[in-house]
Amino acid sequence: MGAENLSFVLEKPYAVKFEDRPVPNVTEPHDVIVNVKYTGICGSDVHYWTHGAIGSFIVKDPMVLGHESAGVVSKVGDAVTTLKVGDRVAMEPGIPCRRCVRCKEGNYNLCVDMRFAATPPYDGTLAKYYKLPEDFCFKLPESVSLEEGALVEPLAVGVHITRQGDVKPGNSVVVFGAGPVGLLCMAVAKAYGASKIVAVDINEDRLQFARKYAATHEFRSARVSAEENAANLIKECDLGVGADVIIDASGAEPCIQTAIHALRVGGTYVQGGMGKNEITWPIAAMCSKELTVKGSFRYSQGDYELAVKFLETGQVKVKELITGTVKFEEAEKAFEGVKNAQGIKTLIQGPE
Amino acid sequence: MGAENLSFVLEKPYAVKFEDRPVPNVTEPHDVIVNVKYTGICGSDVHYWTHGAIGSFIVKDPMVLGHESAGVVSKVGDAVTTLKVGDRVAMEPGIPCRRCVRCKEGNYNLCVDMRFAATPPYDGTLAKYYKLPEDFCFKLPESVSLEEGALVEPLAVGVHITRQGDVKPGNSVVVFGAGPVGLLCMAVAKAYGASKIVAVDINEDRLQFARKYAATHEFRSARVSAEENAANLIKECDLGVGADVIIDASGAEPCIQTAIHALRVGGTYVQGGMGKNEITWPIAAMCSKELTVKGSFRYSQGDYELAVKFLETGQVKVKELITGTVKFEEAEKAFEGVKNAQGIKTLIQGPE
Amino acid sequence: MGAENLSFVLEKPYAVKFEDRPVPNVTEPHDVIVNVKYTGICGSDVHYWTHGAIGSFIVKDPMVLGHESAGVVSKVGDAVTTLKVGDRVAMEPGIPCRRCVRCKEGNYNLCVDMRFAATPPYDGTLAKYYKLPEDFCFKLPESVSLEEGALVEPLAVGVHITRQGDVKPGNSVVVFGAGPVGLLCMAVAKAYGASKIVAVDINEDRLQFARKYAATHEFRSARVSAEENAANLIKECDLGVGADVIIDASGAEPCIQTAIHALRVGGTYVQGGMGKNEITWPIAAMCSKELTVKGSFRYSQGDYELAVKFLETGQVKVKELITGTVKFEEAEKAFEGVKNAQGIKTLIQGPE
Amino acid sequence: MGAENLSFVLEKPYAVKFEDRPVPNVTEPHDVIVNVKYTGICGSDVHYWTHGAIGSFIVKDPMVLGHESAGVVSKVGDAVTTLKVGDRVAMEPGIPCRRCVRCKEGNYNLCVDMRFAATPPYDGTLAKYYKLPEDFCFKLPESVSLEEGALVEPLAVGVHITRQGDVKPGNSVVVFGAGPVGLLCMAVAKAYGASKIVAVDINEDRLQFARKYAATHEFRSARVSAEENAANLIKECDLGVGADVIIDASGAEPCIQTAIHALRVGGTYVQGGMGKNEITWPIAAMCSKELTVKGSFRYSQGDYELAVKFLETGQVKVKELITGTVKFEEAEKAFEGVKNAQGIKTLIQGPE
Repeated sequence: MGAENLSFVLEKPYAVKFEDRPVPNVTEPHDVIVNVKYTGICGSDVHYWTHGAIGSFIVKDPMVLGHESAGVVSKVGDAVTTLKVGDRVAMEPGIPCRRCVRCKEGNYNLCVDMRFAATPPYDGTLAKYYKLPEDFCFKLPESVSLEEGALVEPLAVGVHITRQGDVKPGNSVVVFGAGPVGLLCMAVAKAYGASKIVAVDINEDRLQFARKYAATHEFRSARVSAEENAANLIKECDLGVGADVIIDASGAEPCIQTAIHALRVGGTYVQGGMGKNEITWPIAAMCSKELTVKGSFRYSQGDYELAVKFLETGQVKVKELITGTVKFEEAEKAFEGVKNAQGIKTLIQGPE
Repeated sequence: MGAENLSFVLEKPYAVKFEDRPVPNVTEPHDVIVNVKYTGICGSDVHYWTHGAIGSFIVKDPMVLGHESAGVVSKVGDAVTTLKVGDRVAMEPGIPCRRCVRCKEGNYNLCVDMRFAATPPYDGTLAKYYKLPEDFCFKLPESVSLEEGALVEPLAVGVHITRQGDVKPGNSVVVFGAGPVGLLCMAVAKAYGASKIVAVDINEDRLQFARKYAATHEFRSARVSAEENAANLIKECDLGVGADVIIDASGAEPCIQTAIHALRVGGTYVQGGMGKNEITWPIAAMCSKELTVKGSFRYSQGDYELAVKFLETGQVKVKELITGTVKFEEAEKAFEGVKNAQGIKTLIQGPE
Repeated sequence: MGAENLSFVLEKPYAVKFEDRPVPNVTEPHDVIVNVKYTGICGSDVHYWTHGAIGSFIVKDPMVLGHESAGVVSKVGDAVTTLKVGDRVAMEPGIPCRRCVRCKEGNYNLCVDMRFAATPPYDGTLAKYYKLPEDFCFKLPESVSLEEGALVEPLAVGVHITRQGDVKPGNSVVVFGAGPVGLLCMAVAKAYGASKIVAVDINEDRLQFARKYAATHEFRSARVSAEENAANLIKECDLGVGADVIIDASGAEPCIQTAIHALRVGGTYVQGGMGKNEITWPIAAMCSKELTVKGSFRYSQGDYELAVKFLETGQVKVKELITGTVKFEEAEKAFEGVKNAQGIKTLIQGPE
Repeated sequence: MGAENLSFVLEKPYAVKFEDRPVPNVTEPHDVIVNVKYTGICGSDVHYWTHGAIGSFIVKDPMVLGHESAGVVSKVGDAVTTLKVGDRVAMEPGIPCRRCVRCKEGNYNLCVDMRFAATPPYDGTLAKYYKLPEDFCFKLPESVSLEEGALVEPLAVGVHITRQGDVKPGNSVVVFGAGPVGLLCMAVAKAYGASKIVAVDINEDRLQFARKYAATHEFRSARVSAEENAANLIKECDLGVGADVIIDASGAEPCIQTAIHALRVGGTYVQGGMGKNEITWPIAAMCSKELTVKGSFRYSQGDYELAVKFLETGQVKVKELITGTVKFEEAEKAFEGVKNAQGIKTLIQGPE
């Protein structure tokens, strides 16, 4: 195409275009310019594509999409010491302010001044070049491919959710939803030493995949009350007095309710998927069982680093989650695929 | 009355009687027999009185009421070394199995074999004598009266809730509900070093009392949306980006919803009061703010001990919460008082 | 031999005898009588054999030795519900008081009234029959042999040490000492998700075994200063700014000093092996690096349970650590073997 | 004197001079220039004055001394939103890199690229003007004077030590050393809800002051063995089975040894003062009691903020620790005072 910095730009719902944008320059001493090689697409990307907004984040000006990327370093600032041109890196796509209380206490994902790729008004990574600070680039070990590097982002989401769940060796962990994030949560829970990992879904194929991938048990949700569903789950999967930790990666109200009933006294619940703003919540069960309930939002200090380490050591494998690759010019196909729940993860190649 | 062990017994809703029961005997080497001197009444006692049940706990056989008591040791088993006849003690009214995982990990309040006073089928403490093991009797320091000793139980509830909230020095803590438990949570939060303690209620008198007692700020809830209420609370009480910790001691759905919206990112919510089984829950706010939400159920290891220590050092004061005392023969009056929200804490004297 | 309850008894240093003792009876409703099948021997057993004492614990009256045992349930009390005659169990050999603050907060290993097998004046498990409460018997899964069951005890020691070290996925963990406890710490650290596990020893054979067993790296200590040893360890094993967690399972002063210098700022050190009462300690390094240093003593709530689970799932394997088995009549051979550092773990069969 | 930016400069041991330095300029958008009004002196300042070095930090070029300061904002960068010219602020004197793992996980005190005032080669705050980023300036509440503001630094040290000790309400806390840091640790422990605070020193006057200031008990160390000293401490101060938390703010070997013996099983020790590089350490006691031992180094996220909040609410008072004020021209007098242990805290006024 001959463009300097070809980018995939969203103008308004379903209106996308390819545009040549200026190549980013090193302006700060710790800046790194990355030549983007592979980018995955997730539900939130698709939501911007279909709705032009997520909650109060509204695409007003044309915005480059994409935030799950890996690439090759093409330029570095003067102060950069840990990377050099040619290094292959996973790119953490949200740059916090580094100055607020949340940043300085280790929870930079909660920074109110976060500049996050492909969250308006900030451009994403579906471009030939992308600029980010040195410490948000994670060098890929030799054994990890650039394709796998693009999956560090959703793996970091799984790491963060699992950390919120305080999963401990020997725990029984139930994961609702066997999509990409749910699957990665299962794999991470295993790496955290969980002894029993139950995949819950309504789709038989996804359950089968989950079993082959990382789950030790599976459970198919039925259209019964949450209490009954929970009782069946506990019985079929031999969970004793209930699960130690339950992660919801579905965002579905019946799953969430079932989860609360399926936890043991003193168990932990993590909300890892977004759905409705409000749901009916079994608060008396939560209170009398003294559950710990946690939200989870993106990833924070240590998540990307651990995700890369898991790939390096083989504690988590992501290759089998990559079910397709499309050329940059066909980027919209990847969005359609996610929308239609085809495959698990389709990658978009960087522009030539 | 001449009875050996006069007891206040519930037969069915609103049907109570005084009955002479056998005096309990020392049967285990660590047993202690306590001559009960003062007993407070709380909402759950009243619920048994008015409904004959709380949830699945149903009064089938006549049951002695009461579980907030202090008294004087009248007999001790052979192995008892820490107490002697005549010692004044606060009585922790729930005896766990000591053998299950929850007991052995320090969370005996979650023991499924708990025998809790005045929770069917176990008799309560509104009797002349009550038996319990040595380690569930807490010797009162000289400076603490037996009347104050009867308030160790609700104070231990407040301690447990505050510990669930992981209140830290410097925190802003908002407490919804300025009844006995809410007030004690405020006092405990102060003892934990909280710098700002906001009392929230709809009753002006209770707010005034809370301010004099332990709160640094007050907020009167209005009949507006939870978001609006939360915004007003934050603004009026200068809570910046939201409160660090919010405790609900009201059990009221609008309070709970307001609380979730009034917390800062990364804040902690504790459900300290029971209300409806299910409520409408702002789960998206909980998730994206990465809140920690916790239930709280009775008290566990260390709570009673800390409650007594707080009274000993004066870190918490409870005398001003005692708004009346009735004779044992008039016990039902204390129940009526709680039902009608009269005073804060009415104590029932032990039988002569 | 025709004895009812043949026991291996220590009278004074090096003076042992076989004695027929009365078969223990069920006296409490939760009592379980176990027919002991295999018993391992560790350094502390040997220390009693050679010295008749460990610190202030002095063998005054003849005492049955042994505390690392598994066997078959031969009798159960009336209240026992989780076990039946014929069940194969690992036996946790220390019974705490269940009443003190340490017991009730989950740290029963710190109970001052602990009755621990083969710690004077309490008899050990090297007998045909041994009595203990239901909740200190852990049913072995079908896939776990009784021989492996005898290794649950040292495995629980490794679990406890690793928990003290708060080992987290991705951590680099260095273990000094590649004897049984050190090896098990390495295996447990792996089950906890550690990405790098460095075995340190002065014996090449043990290092080789450690590498095959659970370590990812090895380091042979040299007779140089602690600082130099630490610098070499960091360099050779690519530990960056230092190890995240270091466990000492050697008790040797130079190892401990090296460990402190080899930790990164903010790292964690666990003392897992006992040696001298006092050592020279690099306190300025500990202080300015803000290390967390912890002792570790036996095992506590959840350790045995997790050890059995690790064996069940295969997260930890112990079969290869069993390097020999002797008949009960040859029990002293096993003590000699440990004394002479022969093999890794020799088991003593129960009496016929 | 007419100087633009009069500074108090150390050239080599005992060789100091007053020098007019260039006034710092705003070069980054978040920069703040502070007109320094009061500066306290501590042991490390004096150590540079007397030795020209602390460990590997050696004064090679002339260096401005001082790091415990408060002042008035005289200029702000474009991006500064939380401060304006004229605001009174406490100045946190160490600026970390904000990019390394330690910074991003909330432990910026452990940053290897820390630029700390008056630690070579970085100039300190004993000057008319000092530049630092907005988020390291803490606005003083109206009720807090600039003199008190200069004590925020040592108070933050006390906050950090107490946090390392995980002091909890109801705890017994023993503090060795009743100098400025030890006294502030006592006051902070009280604000954290400790019920018993024991001051230990060898100087009767300091003990008397400690009792009046924040301690509930005092203990005068004697020239006996550490075990005996510990036993006496426990007995005299009624510490039961030992103290929950012990903080050493003395750096003295006998104190440290006594502390380890005076802790209860499972207790926590914090090394808060620096002394010798190596000491004789009772490791067997540490191990078998499963102590948690921690270093403490400067302060980190939240410490300054909490220190200011404690002054605002009156939870900690520092006014009574200020025992003298000298003019800038007499700065060396303050160093002499600390060296000769005169008074508690002498402040140096900023240059006119």
